[in-house]
Amino acid sequence: MAPKSVCIVGSGNWGSAIAKIIGYNVQRQPDAFEKKVKMYMYEEIVDGRKLTEIVNTDHENVKYLPGIKLPENVVAIPDVIEACTGADMLVFVLPHQFVKKVCEQMKGHIKPGAVAISMIKGFAITGGGIQLISHIIAQELGTECAVLMGANLAKEVAEEEFCETTIGSKTDSTGQLFKDLVETPYFRVAVVKDADTVEMCGALKNVVAIGAGIVDGIKQGDNTKAAVIRLGLMEMIKFGEEFFPGSRRNTFFESCGIADLVATCHGGRNRMLGAAVVESDKTIQELEKEILKGQSFQGPLVAREVCSMLEEKGLCDKFPMFVAVNKICQRVMDPKLFISCLRNHPAHL
Amino acid sequence: MAPKSVCIVGSGNWGSAIAKIIGYNVQRQPDAFEKKVKMYMYEEIVDGRKLTEIVNTDHENVKYLPGIKLPENVVAIPDVIEACTGADMLVFVLPHQFVKKVCEQMKGHIKPGAVAISMIKGFAITGGGIQLISHIIAQELGTECAVLMGANLAKEVAEEEFCETTIGSKTDSTGQLFKDLVETPYFRVAVVKDADTVEMCGALKNVVAIGAGIVDGIKQGDNTKAAVIRLGLMEMIKFGEEFFPGSRRNTFFESCGIADLVATCHGGRNRMLGAAVVESDKTIQELEKEILKGQSFQGPLVAREVCSMLEEKGLCDKFPMFVAVNKICQRVMDPKLFISCLRNHPAHL
Repeated sequence: MAPKSVCIVGSGNWGSAIAKIIGYNVQRQPDAFEKKVKMYMYEEIVDGRKLTEIVNTDHENVKYLPGIKLPENVVAIPDVIEACTGADMLVFVLPHQFVKKVCEQMKGHIKPGAVAISMIKGFAITGGGIQLISHIIAQELGTECAVLMGANLAKEVAEEEFCETTIGSKTDSTGQLFKDLVETPYFRVAVVKDADTVEMCGALKNVVAIGAGIVDGIKQGDNTKAAVIRLGLMEMIKFGEEFFPGSRRNTFFESCGIADLVATCHGGRNRMLGAAVVESDKTIQELEKEILKGQSFQGPLVAREVCSMLEEKGLCDKFPMFVAVNKICQRVMDPKLFISCLRNHPAHL
Repeated sequence: MAPKSVCIVGSGNWGSAIAKIIGYNVQRQPDAFEKKVKMYMYEEIVDGRKLTEIVNTDHENVKYLPGIKLPENVVAIPDVIEACTGADMLVFVLPHQFVKKVCEQMKGHIKPGAVAISMIKGFAITGGGIQLISHIIAQELGTECAVLMGANLAKEVAEEEFCETTIGSKTDSTGQLFKDLVETPYFRVAVVKDADTVEMCGALKNVVAIGAGIVDGIKQGDNTKAAVIRLGLMEMIKFGEEFFPGSRRNTFFESCGIADLVATCHGGRNRMLGAAVVESDKTIQELEKEILKGQSFQGPLVAREVCSMLEEKGLCDKFPMFVAVNKICQRVMDPKLFISCLRNHPAHL
């Protein structure tokens, strides 16, 4: 088979970290992959120069991943159609709010038989519930779309600290193809078929992380925090069973499950939000302005949509933590009451 | 049925915390339990007074759980035979090295039909491998013996911070009986039948916690630590499958599994040991003297015995973390090589 050509759609912090890996990996496997890796990059001007030009000349994304050299075979392209044309493999690492618009531009320019993978964490919030981002990509482009999720902070991956990740792919061949593309001695990949669960974990963990942050904020110890993380995991599993039929418990043992959850509940911005909600009376919007300089926290958005889905199905009493986190984020419940909502958790019956 | 009488065998830090719970709970349920709770206490002299007398007069274990009032119906008794005679329910919370000797004293004085529970974490290390402490109790006394394990630091439980625990009991009735005895609004109990796995978790977590401490010591980030915790959990599961046939994966989702593991890998003395092993060249024995004032760390002992069991069955290559932790504790491997032992972990195949 001819070597596959790869296009990375997105070039932020995480996109640049994964571009470093992919750039090296295709060089190591010339029979499997084409050397040139095209990376779609939204054009910006940084210190009077085009960011694509900086990346293609200096081989560093000075704005989103400063200090890390990218392989020279990664080529930044500001036109998404030019970038994706002819690609056999499409790697999506855009901020989730741009996925639909970018896919609409790409439509009609996709090589027949191309396969995609989404490395984008979070749900697409449509107002009428949630949608998996891989499903949007698959629908828009008519391609198969796998997912990659795990405890993978971009900076640590870029610095080659050891971590693991999970690829969820409905077909073995696509899963293996993307594993070959991204696995390195410091970035270890397990492949599972239960792709929807893998993707779901990457969004729901942020709701649990707010809960873990609340525990930190109310100054409870490691045991209480461990209980909250576990009860959150139980609700993630239950959510999978209710909304993604066929969801498998074993998937939660993968990096996308417990590992990402544990990392997010100990570091991560949603944990920080949970603690901040206890320590001040400010609204989420005010805290976003302060902590994230205007970006949004995923956790509160996901909590809100998840709770409206639970309400519709009459399932709120089976998910006391998701419900409490949502109420606390909406500022209609005192965070000090968080723990009392968990005392009669269905996991204890 | 006549109310059951309860004897607590042991009265240290954890024993006193659980005595507080049991003392209150039997008062709340007079039809189910006798009011007087006997607590076997190894006699010591504290400031010129007998510790049993202090507990029975001042209702505080000033040596092992200072600052916490015990219910007045908890009565400390320095003679184990007197304490256990007539008891329908025996709660074991001794340091593990005393279990066998105390059981030998109790033998022949156990009420027919009495049931036991072990709240003692760790394996009994016999030199010829490991033995479950609940099995020793059951064998010595001829009683059924359940177990209770979870993310339950004695001090936090005594201060009524919210946490969860797991009872493992081969029969539903005994599991429910002990759940009724110990559950409170801040100490939530789930009961599972897979008792051996529950108990095994309480020992193996300490091996993984050393690994987590090594990651802290070598200054890796949250993602690496999450990967190490997850790979440790995978080895715990695999160990259960190999050595405790019938061990169920779902048990690892309980408090005894992931919750206790996560808490132990973020707090706890074995984590501290892992970090200390990186930061100095001292032997485990020297570190025990320094950090624990002469007490032993469970982790290195368990790691050593577990590894000799693995070696006997030719299974070392399936447990790279347990093997690496053991070698590092024995000081025959540089802790900086810890991560490289995990790069080809069987969980990634």
